[in-house]
Amino acid sequence: MLFIPNCRMIKLSDIQAATNRISEHIHKTPVLTSKLINKYIGAELFFKCENFQKTGSFKIRGAANAVFSLNDEELKAGVVTHSSGNFAQALALAASWRNIPAYIVMPETATKVKVQAVQDYGGIIQFCKPTQAARESSAAKIMKETGAKFIHPYDNNNIIAGQGTAAIEFINEIPNLEVIMAPIGGGGLMGGTAIAARELKTDIKIIATEPENANDAYKSFKHKKRFPANKPHTIADGLLTSVGDLNYKIMMNYFDDILCCSEENIKLAMKIIYERMKIVIEPSSAVPLACIIQNKEHFRNKKTGIILSGGNIDLSNIIN
Amino acid sequence: MLFIPNCRMIKLSDIQAATNRISEHIHKTPVLTSKLINKYIGAELFFKCENFQKTGSFKIRGAANAVFSLNDEELKAGVVTHSSGNFAQALALAASWRNIPAYIVMPETATKVKVQAVQDYGGIIQFCKPTQAARESSAAKIMKETGAKFIHPYDNNNIIAGQGTAAIEFINEIPNLEVIMAPIGGGGLMGGTAIAARELKTDIKIIATEPENANDAYKSFKHKKRFPANKPHTIADGLLTSVGDLNYKIMMNYFDDILCCSEENIKLAMKIIYERMKIVIEPSSAVPLACIIQNKEHFRNKKTGIILSGGNIDLSNIIN
Repeated sequence: MLFIPNCRMIKLSDIQAATNRISEHIHKTPVLTSKLINKYIGAELFFKCENFQKTGSFKIRGAANAVFSLNDEELKAGVVTHSSGNFAQALALAASWRNIPAYIVMPETATKVKVQAVQDYGGIIQFCKPTQAARESSAAKIMKETGAKFIHPYDNNNIIAGQGTAAIEFINEIPNLEVIMAPIGGGGLMGGTAIAARELKTDIKIIATEPENANDAYKSFKHKKRFPANKPHTIADGLLTSVGDLNYKIMMNYFDDILCCSEENIKLAMKIIYERMKIVIEPSSAVPLACIIQNKEHFRNKKTGIILSGGNIDLSNIIN
Repeated sequence: MLFIPNCRMIKLSDIQAATNRISEHIHKTPVLTSKLINKYIGAELFFKCENFQKTGSFKIRGAANAVFSLNDEELKAGVVTHSSGNFAQALALAASWRNIPAYIVMPETATKVKVQAVQDYGGIIQFCKPTQAARESSAAKIMKETGAKFIHPYDNNNIIAGQGTAAIEFINEIPNLEVIMAPIGGGGLMGGTAIAARELKTDIKIIATEPENANDAYKSFKHKKRFPANKPHTIADGLLTSVGDLNYKIMMNYFDDILCCSEENIKLAMKIIYERMKIVIEPSSAVPLACIIQNKEHFRNKKTGIILSGGNIDLSNIIN
């Protein structure tokens, strides 16, 4: 086991505790199947639909677990995070459930739709320059000024445990799954999924999936050393981040493989899911199916579970 | 009751018989709700998701009932219809269940996606000029040459009875519905819905919905005489047809009202359903919600059922 300082790895019991903490607040999302897609792929695919989750993505699981894991004293000045995407909405909603302020640092380049969504959930937005340094310094400034508690979007054990609750639901519903897959960005979803899946089902294959154009996790996994994201450019805009410290450790200890896919196959997978399943997903959610399309032979006749991570896309270019 | 020659109006028992005939072949589609949409509208809305139906629309209900209502002798030379849209796919699939050929007359202007879908279900396509006269003469020619049985897409009692099965499922699942709504084009869906709903629930309000830019049913209903569609132009491309004879009679006897909506509100309703419910619908399916948005006060606190008619859209402009 690799050693990373100051870092306890979560256990199944942490994820089960998260389930107890959050289940009354979130949706138990449905698992869908498509005979036509199965016929096309030659495998038996199951889709866990976190696009139907509250706030439109799995991120509310971790955000809810984080705020409900802290006591009133710890939360009295609210919470703060930096995110331009789904975690921003999730933390804003979870904070509203505890009646505390959520300060959200967003890059000034964030789309209007995302800004509006955070505001709709009651988040207090602080804009910053679109760099990692500006995000971090803006969040630090808010912590100092308000005393708000910083909640990292993925490099936080409460977040990872919360994200793992989707895998527990999934395996409880489809106990004979042979493979479980999700996309990997910062790694919170895959981290929680890997621990839940391996501890519930020793022989399940745990496969993370990534765009070829944002393949830091793949390179890190194959070379057994950290590679940060290097100018990632992909339509799967939820997967631009480098894997976090905690999730790097889980990855090296729990994943069976990481597969990558082309931008072409992400678009094809997204089109197949829209056309055949009639559900709205964001491009990041199409990455596991895109990897299966690119590696069909690995999945022949396998009962394969895919977590569709979210459904938040900007439709202004589509319906106008 | 208005008199239209040679036309028996179907009864609830015909729709119940259709249910028995087709239920093993089709999906019992889910009913979804959205707290956010309810809050926005100020009503309690229920969405019957025929976009998740086989072939991506309710049309398979009527097509299946039509082919399973005829005996082997009547069907021995196959079936023929003219349709550029969802009925073409539906009849092709239903015919395949009875192992008979389906001849589909399609305008040469039909999109590649629709042509491909009909071919995928095994339909034999005959292209014609994009006029009503050309469609009818092409279908008549095929009937003469092959002996195939003509199945009208909506002006046919077996079709209307089949389409009505969605309303029976809907009211069985949500027995306290106060209003039931669907879009109206040729009127098969609304015809079957009206008879099923009124006979199951005397006091339910039956409301058809139509784009302002294709409002032949609205004008016919209000003026109590037939108005054909007059150069309709709407993104709700499933609703361009004039109401059929049989459905005109049902409309005048069973509907409580017809509401119309602007193109703007169709796009808004479509966007709301994509963004909030994360499901893919075609523009025609957005028409009932668009009419509610345009007439919110009529629906205040009302338990209102909407049949989302289908989800077949061409994504080539969206994901590319």
